Amino acid sequence: MPQRPHRPLPLATPAGVEVLTRILTQGPIPRVEIARRTGLSQAAVTKAVAPLIEAGFVTDQPSTPIEAENQLGIGRPVSPLTVVANSVSVIGLKVTPTALIGVTTDFTAGIQTVRHQRLDDTSPDSVIERLSDLAKELISSLKTAGPLIGVGVAVSGDVDGRHGVVRDSPFMGWRDVPVAELLGKRLKVPVVVTNDVRALTVAEHWFGVGVDADSFAVVTIGSGIGCGLYINGEVVSGAYGVSGELGHLPLAPGKLVCTCGRRGCVETVASSDAILARTRETTGRADLDLAGAIELAHAGDKHAREAFNRAGEVIGSALAAMVNLVGPELVVIAGEGVAEYDLYEERMRQAFADHAFGAAGACRLMLRSHTFDNWARGAAATVIRSYVRGEPPLQR
Amino acid sequence: MPQRPHRPLPLATPAGVEVLTRILTQGPIPRVEIARRTGLSQAAVTKAVAPLIEAGFVTDQPSTPIEAENQLGIGRPVSPLTVVANSVSVIGLKVTPTALIGVTTDFTAGIQTVRHQRLDDTSPDSVIERLSDLAKELISSLKTAGPLIGVGVAVSGDVDGRHGVVRDSPFMGWRDVPVAELLGKRLKVPVVVTNDVRALTVAEHWFGVGVDADSFAVVTIGSGIGCGLYINGEVVSGAYGVSGELGHLPLAPGKLVCTCGRRGCVETVASSDAILARTRETTGRADLDLAGAIELAHAGDKHAREAFNRAGEVIGSALAAMVNLVGPELVVIAGEGVAEYDLYEERMRQAFADHAFGAAGACRLMLRSHTFDNWARGAAATVIRSYVRGEPPLQR
Ligand SMILES: [Zn+2]
Ligand SMILES: [Zn+2]
Repeated sequence: MPQRPHRPLPLATPAGVEVLTRILTQGPIPRVEIARRTGLSQAAVTKAVAPLIEAGFVTDQPSTPIEAENQLGIGRPVSPLTVVANSVSVIGLKVTPTALIGVTTDFTAGIQTVRHQRLDDTSPDSVIERLSDLAKELISSLKTAGPLIGVGVAVSGDVDGRHGVVRDSPFMGWRDVPVAELLGKRLKVPVVVTNDVRALTVAEHWFGVGVDADSFAVVTIGSGIGCGLYINGEVVSGAYGVSGELGHLPLAPGKLVCTCGRRGCVETVASSDAILARTRETTGRADLDLAGAIELAHAGDKHAREAFNRAGEVIGSALAAMVNLVGPELVVIAGEGVAEYDLYEERMRQAFADHAFGAAGACRLMLRSHTFDNWARGAAATVIRSYVRGEPPLQR
Repeated sequence: MPQRPHRPLPLATPAGVEVLTRILTQGPIPRVEIARRTGLSQAAVTKAVAPLIEAGFVTDQPSTPIEAENQLGIGRPVSPLTVVANSVSVIGLKVTPTALIGVTTDFTAGIQTVRHQRLDDTSPDSVIERLSDLAKELISSLKTAGPLIGVGVAVSGDVDGRHGVVRDSPFMGWRDVPVAELLGKRLKVPVVVTNDVRALTVAEHWFGVGVDADSFAVVTIGSGIGCGLYINGEVVSGAYGVSGELGHLPLAPGKLVCTCGRRGCVETVASSDAILARTRETTGRADLDLAGAIELAHAGDKHAREAFNRAGEVIGSALAAMVNLVGPELVVIAGEGVAEYDLYEERMRQAFADHAFGAAGACRLMLRSHTFDNWARGAAATVIRSYVRGEPPLQR
């Protein structure tokens, strides 16, 4: 049985959760500013903060003497609040068909340790064993860090986060794998399982662009085309657990069949496999791999260029469709495909401009450089969010 | 200058707004249930309710002797709270190119009076005069009702609600028309201007399906194809004022040019004008009007049927695209096009089933019978929402 978190948070009320969330994501922040942003009274903020300081999760001490001096310099100290980063530790794991990536982070999702492991066998049993080994290795690296609050696992596909089950992951070939239960039994810590793109979105929401943006989308480009949406103060999860399936909007010509079995999906033209297949077909070189197709395109081969152009055009139309529907303030473009951004950017931007409706096109497109560590960090951010919100750990 | 509302609400805190919103949209509701749903203490609920009862906006008295008796029958009275429906009055106006529709409603958006007026001239000056006359006529009908809190105006297109300006309404041929200012000057009451589909969505959110659904979409079919989204506790407004532009997703074959100037928009195939144009083209009957095309299709004419089938297919794909992205619990289908729903339903449902991704397809499609009165009621609901939230009336 997974244990409860070693370090329970003293948060009895919704106001406490709100206050800690502000300190965590917007700190250093003075009490008066928290009151202003939340609509709580200053007394209520002070009351919520006191047990958090007492228990060592939050501090109003400047972290350096220089800060202390600056504070004195501007009159009476404003005592901004920050979280104590090392008051807890978190582990985030990202599962891909060829590798496992694990990180340990502090309370602010700051990465401390990274481990990569090759994966040869994607069967659920084997992957769970390897995940468990990786997590144990990371746990043993935590000796001097804060107590572990949980392990997050990010997997692509349809993930039922509430029950910790990967319902359908085409890339892994998994159906109905109870990851939280299987891993929790082995690790005896709470396990949170999440869709990988949603995990990236949670990380951006709490520790990235989302701190300043009222709404944003994270669009991932690579072996799949994914999308996380942050709207009206929360990451969009979908009433039936599905949302952000940008790769499966019916925007492409309908001849090709998608990995999902449908026709006309964005991914039939824009996934890295689709780009590779098209390049093989038009060049007649069945031996090409993705690196080879990228090399050809960079060398100016017109067939390879055309495959990337086609992808860019469909990605741009998909971005426009998403922006026309939900109107985010900005779009963060991420995923392993950003490495070849130069090969499809022009057509993507052109198609986006052609189809974005009115003021919705004012939305900024922002590029995030890709590392798989970021996906694992997203899983850790999801654990932090569950912990702060007091969502029950999965106990079976 | 528009006057402030005749009847200011005694709501000093965010908790007060939250409590009144619950009573308005979920009443009759006991204090203890409001506390449970909001996370507020029972004392805080009681404190927020007291001035509302005192001022006559809320009551805990049963409205009939039978209710009082029933309460006694089940032990001690539970004193559920309800709003006093006739404590205020609201006017909602819907502008179409051929008619103005006006309603008066009570505090719960219950329609009391309806007026329709033909419109011959769509120039802003003329329409503002006619709107002003219609509003004055409705105001004079309010003699025995509660004091008027404001006038809402619903217009299709890109509407800047904060400044009360219709930025771009292709159907009306309007650009940058400061409706709130022009109408407010004439009526001396606060005027709220809103996109018509968003107004319908606000009405569903506060007084319709939204009371029970965590997320939903309103899709309007007719001379335009629109969409309002309710996600994460709020209607989606778009960071730049644009959202829900389902009619301008690039899902149709790219040959036809849309009224918006772009190619491949859903409306190039699925708007009522597009259906009519297609039927005229394939039947060779340039004299047909929409009623004639509908009649032909109902009579089994294969050309007319094909035009509706094509529309249904693109509407179904657009529904799937929206559902794949935001995953609503249910979709309400509304608009004047629901009258011909039988002509495109089959193909629409087929295309939706073909392209909805996994569990997202579990989303229910629900039909709302169409009246223009509902659009005007949406405008009134928007006024009620602004009033309860204490959003400043547009004073110029
Ligand atoms: Zn697909
Ligand atoms: Zn268009």
